[in-house]
Amino acid sequence: MNDKSVVEQISSPKDLNDLSEQELERLCEEIREIIVSVVSKNGGHLASNLGTVELTVALHRVFNNDNDSLVWDVGHQSYTHKILTGRLKDIYSIRTEDGISGFPKREESKYDAFNAGHSSTSVSAAYGIAVAKQINGDDGKTVAIIGDGALTGGLAFEGLNNAGKSKSNFIIVLNDNKMSISRNVGALARYLGGIRTNLKYLRLKTRVERGLIKLPVLGNPIRRLLKSSKSRVRNLVYKRTLFDDMGFVYYGPVDGHNIQELEKAFVAAKNVNRPVLVHAVTTKGKGYSFAENDPKGFHGLGGFDIDTGEKISSSRDFSSVFGDLLSDMAYENKNICAITAAMATGTGLVKFSKSHKDRFFDVGIAEEHAVTFASGLSVQGMIPVFAVYSTFMQRSVDQIIHDAAMQKVHMVLAIDRAGVVGTDGETHQGVFDVALLNSVPNVKIYSPCYFDELEYALYSAINNESCVVAVRYPKGGQPYKPLDYSSSFKSFDLYGDRDGRVLVITYGRLFSNACRALERLKKDGEKACVLKLNCIKPIDIEAVKTACEYSSILFFEEGMKTGGVGEGFLCMLEECGYRGSFSLMAINDEFVAQAEVERTLEKLNLDENSMYNNILGALRRCDFGREKKT
Amino acid sequence: MNDKSVVEQISSPKDLNDLSEQELERLCEEIREIIVSVVSKNGGHLASNLGTVELTVALHRVFNNDNDSLVWDVGHQSYTHKILTGRLKDIYSIRTEDGISGFPKREESKYDAFNAGHSSTSVSAAYGIAVAKQINGDDGKTVAIIGDGALTGGLAFEGLNNAGKSKSNFIIVLNDNKMSISRNVGALARYLGGIRTNLKYLRLKTRVERGLIKLPVLGNPIRRLLKSSKSRVRNLVYKRTLFDDMGFVYYGPVDGHNIQELEKAFVAAKNVNRPVLVHAVTTKGKGYSFAENDPKGFHGLGGFDIDTGEKISSSRDFSSVFGDLLSDMAYENKNICAITAAMATGTGLVKFSKSHKDRFFDVGIAEEHAVTFASGLSVQGMIPVFAVYSTFMQRSVDQIIHDAAMQKVHMVLAIDRAGVVGTDGETHQGVFDVALLNSVPNVKIYSPCYFDELEYALYSAINNESCVVAVRYPKGGQPYKPLDYSSSFKSFDLYGDRDGRVLVITYGRLFSNACRALERLKKDGEKACVLKLNCIKPIDIEAVKTACEYSSILFFEEGMKTGGVGEGFLCMLEECGYRGSFSLMAINDEFVAQAEVERTLEKLNLDENSMYNNILGALRRCDFGREKKT
Repeated sequence: MNDKSVVEQISSPKDLNDLSEQELERLCEEIREIIVSVVSKNGGHLASNLGTVELTVALHRVFNNDNDSLVWDVGHQSYTHKILTGRLKDIYSIRTEDGISGFPKREESKYDAFNAGHSSTSVSAAYGIAVAKQINGDDGKTVAIIGDGALTGGLAFEGLNNAGKSKSNFIIVLNDNKMSISRNVGALARYLGGIRTNLKYLRLKTRVERGLIKLPVLGNPIRRLLKSSKSRVRNLVYKRTLFDDMGFVYYGPVDGHNIQELEKAFVAAKNVNRPVLVHAVTTKGKGYSFAENDPKGFHGLGGFDIDTGEKISSSRDFSSVFGDLLSDMAYENKNICAITAAMATGTGLVKFSKSHKDRFFDVGIAEEHAVTFASGLSVQGMIPVFAVYSTFMQRSVDQIIHDAAMQKVHMVLAIDRAGVVGTDGETHQGVFDVALLNSVPNVKIYSPCYFDELEYALYSAINNESCVVAVRYPKGGQPYKPLDYSSSFKSFDLYGDRDGRVLVITYGRLFSNACRALERLKKDGEKACVLKLNCIKPIDIEAVKTACEYSSILFFEEGMKTGGVGEGFLCMLEECGYRGSFSLMAINDEFVAQAEVERTLEKLNLDENSMYNNILGALRRCDFGREKKT
Repeated sequence: MNDKSVVEQISSPKDLNDLSEQELERLCEEIREIIVSVVSKNGGHLASNLGTVELTVALHRVFNNDNDSLVWDVGHQSYTHKILTGRLKDIYSIRTEDGISGFPKREESKYDAFNAGHSSTSVSAAYGIAVAKQINGDDGKTVAIIGDGALTGGLAFEGLNNAGKSKSNFIIVLNDNKMSISRNVGALARYLGGIRTNLKYLRLKTRVERGLIKLPVLGNPIRRLLKSSKSRVRNLVYKRTLFDDMGFVYYGPVDGHNIQELEKAFVAAKNVNRPVLVHAVTTKGKGYSFAENDPKGFHGLGGFDIDTGEKISSSRDFSSVFGDLLSDMAYENKNICAITAAMATGTGLVKFSKSHKDRFFDVGIAEEHAVTFASGLSVQGMIPVFAVYSTFMQRSVDQIIHDAAMQKVHMVLAIDRAGVVGTDGETHQGVFDVALLNSVPNVKIYSPCYFDELEYALYSAINNESCVVAVRYPKGGQPYKPLDYSSSFKSFDLYGDRDGRVLVITYGRLFSNACRALERLKKDGEKACVLKLNCIKPIDIEAVKTACEYSSILFFEEGMKTGGVGEGFLCMLEECGYRGSFSLMAINDEFVAQAEVERTLEKLNLDENSMYNNILGALRRCDFGREKKT
């Protein structure tokens, strides 16, 4: 061994073949140190990555044909994979602007077979890849690596159902760490628990089977049955796992931290001409005691102190304001139910889950089910509140249309992480929810900017409304609030100099940037006004009429331009006969790359400075003769 | 028995209790006659309804507590339920304007526990209902009735996973007819086949089990094992069905056309304090020979001749034009793959499925998987074409965003039944696809009006593009085409008098109505022009510039107004400095009720007559002084 650390000797996965058992062990230690160090600085996913170090090493030792494809589900466990596939030097740039992504990305490396970010896609994607290889006579293997949490998503099941009937090799590695982000829930989790607690069951089964055939009385019919050419009959009478039922050869459970055991299973899996599932049991947070003891707390996080495990404390955020109020309200209102798709911590529902256990539902990573289940609760008179990140709400669009809104149920969608989210990057941006919900009848959307507005919107959504009400709020804490602003809690508010000619319209967090811009303008002696929409669907016609009084309107929107609020507002202005100028700044038909929130807004021209410059430009144009036409 | 037929004596499900075995038999015959007669006239779902007559009768005999809820999946099997719950007189109005719906609807009857239309929602909805009852101390039972086809949808699995861990009674009736709409596919279908082919297996299993314990050598350890308090260990070693694994007590399979057998199973299911699944085997089309022999052909259909089974022949439609061309192209281009979510017949893919078997994929009722699977095919160089009804595409929004568009794959979404669909009603209207896809980057949308335009769009999507391309086309045949119109196959076309002051903008099928309106205007001596958008995303800036030349623009859109093409077009007009008038006619924040297509367009003011009147009004306003301002 030379002076280099082991990990530095790995420039491509093929180099793993040359390592001894001791070197492999050392490699895993080094990788863990890197992961802990990187995440402590850049934030990211810790526990999930620490749990898959050996698994990834073993995968790359067995599947290192150039045509082999590894498809990582979610991708929050792919740091080791990145390190082993030529990105050791880039790993410290992970999740930063222009740095590598925290998730697999085909643009980054030929070893990233499929992009990820959202859960439960790997089986479907990998099966597509495998089928294409088969059609093209390519002998490369395809492996989907999926967690037991992701397996609760319906998409994964649809993939299993389709792939399970294949007659060719196709491999799924079930990374079973007993967790989604929170503890895994549901019947499948219990079932996997059953397998895990009896590691010996396969051996026992074989012994029983052998014994049966030898028996004098029952032996013959049983032998006939077991040897039956109709193997499905045999499987039914004397069958194996749920995965066998779905058409997969089942290997496991194997120790997911034992490279040799894993490799043995992978080699076996490679050589079956059928779909195979390898069940690996891993420990989330493995090797870093703080994470092992609190895998939920160390799943996805900002920076932390390596020695003490202390996290960089964040101040009170929208999620906790939401969760606290909902829990409080539920003491009085016994109809309130809270639903999460495996995100109790992230959405602030932990308190509710303890105080109102019988009305709290963690349904697994199942956003579709969450909405339809909520609709069922609602038709029986409950008031379900589904707390979900904006980006994951994309999963339940049809259920919101078909099961909730069309049926006129009363339900609250608490849409967290609405707007840009920062370093999680493009897969996690909350920039589509408004455009997606905007076209759906019987849906009302509130977009608070401050904690008190969130509280009012939630209160109102539960007590004053009877339709589907979405309340959307950003990631993090309360933004800047001018001392002289207080919300009317009506459908819109006006702030600033109402007798100017330029009107800024915006909603949600951007109001804060607009206020700062206005303050700078005031110092310059300029006048402008902000119309802040609190309810963005439906648009209050009074807001439109008010806007009609201005010569120039600048609309700022932290979301997709097409289908967003701005376009609809313009249409209403037109219907009201508005003849002034209108300018819409929003996200223009592009996905939004990873960067800190403030920096992202800057790149999208939605920061204070861009607003300032835009307003100033509009004021100048008004000065230089463009007339108010109304 | 009096003169009345048996069915006329049933004014509420409770009346079923008074019937003798013979009367029940007679009732089922009468119901079948009614169903065949109604569907032969009104169109609708035949085979699925004929398959569930006895099942429905048995359900209503066992579950007729006022608090019991029956939740029908999809709802295309609920005609018997409607007949038995006071809607016998209304049944002939089914699927007509102001008539009763072809699907369950809470607005219609207290016996309709949950609205349906789309597949795979029943488990989730019913579990929500059951949980709400439990919270409120209501002892009513809740039953989800789901087909084996619908069970392949991921949403159903998410529901099973959530409900399977319940500790209270919750009943699922699996209506296993071996079909989705086409023959059911996938691993689950094969698995159910395994159960069905060995009806005796449960009895056999018990015999084996009893025998085992008596054995001298193995008896003791096996007895210990089987009697183990850890019943999950026992289940693993010697277990039952996949549904047991998911936490359900399994009863079945039972003969789904034997009322007594069904009732016995339902009564047993009622009395278990756990989730229960009753597996009923039924025959699609039962009792009407033409439908029994061709359940696929008699699934959902227009009218037909009862005596001959001959269907009212429909002329060549968009689906077949699409399917024929795709099949033809696939001979030359070996990368083309076709995907359907259990709709090979409806989407016109039967020919392709035969001519290119290895590149045809029926993935089950799994629209999410279809898109992610297609993305997998695409990253390996294939060109997947997913043919899907507009309304069902709503299921795959996140996959289109996250797995396809964001990853810049080349894929074609062939969106059939785009626009209003007629008598299937509000759950099936194809009016959201444009608004939903409009905000997604890297997506192009074509909206042909005629067969040749569909062919060109499809050809172009496959050969000239490299992103996600949606080609959307309406249900049915080619609409009216003026003799002097021929498409340029460019992003837009102009038709009519270009030197007028009024411009009509539209896309898709509505172009045809606009042409008729123009012809009437021409006879009146009036001039107007139509700008027909062929590519609706992105909008060609030249189209906007052309539009800027007119004083008055009328935009007609067969889709949701908010988030649609019209609003975005207005925004571009504004950016180009347009100062004329703009008026947008589209679907205004409401769901669209059932009625014939032409009648629906009339109600939406999108028919020829409304266009004529609107254009005339605009011409008059131009005459009376509203100036062209550019």
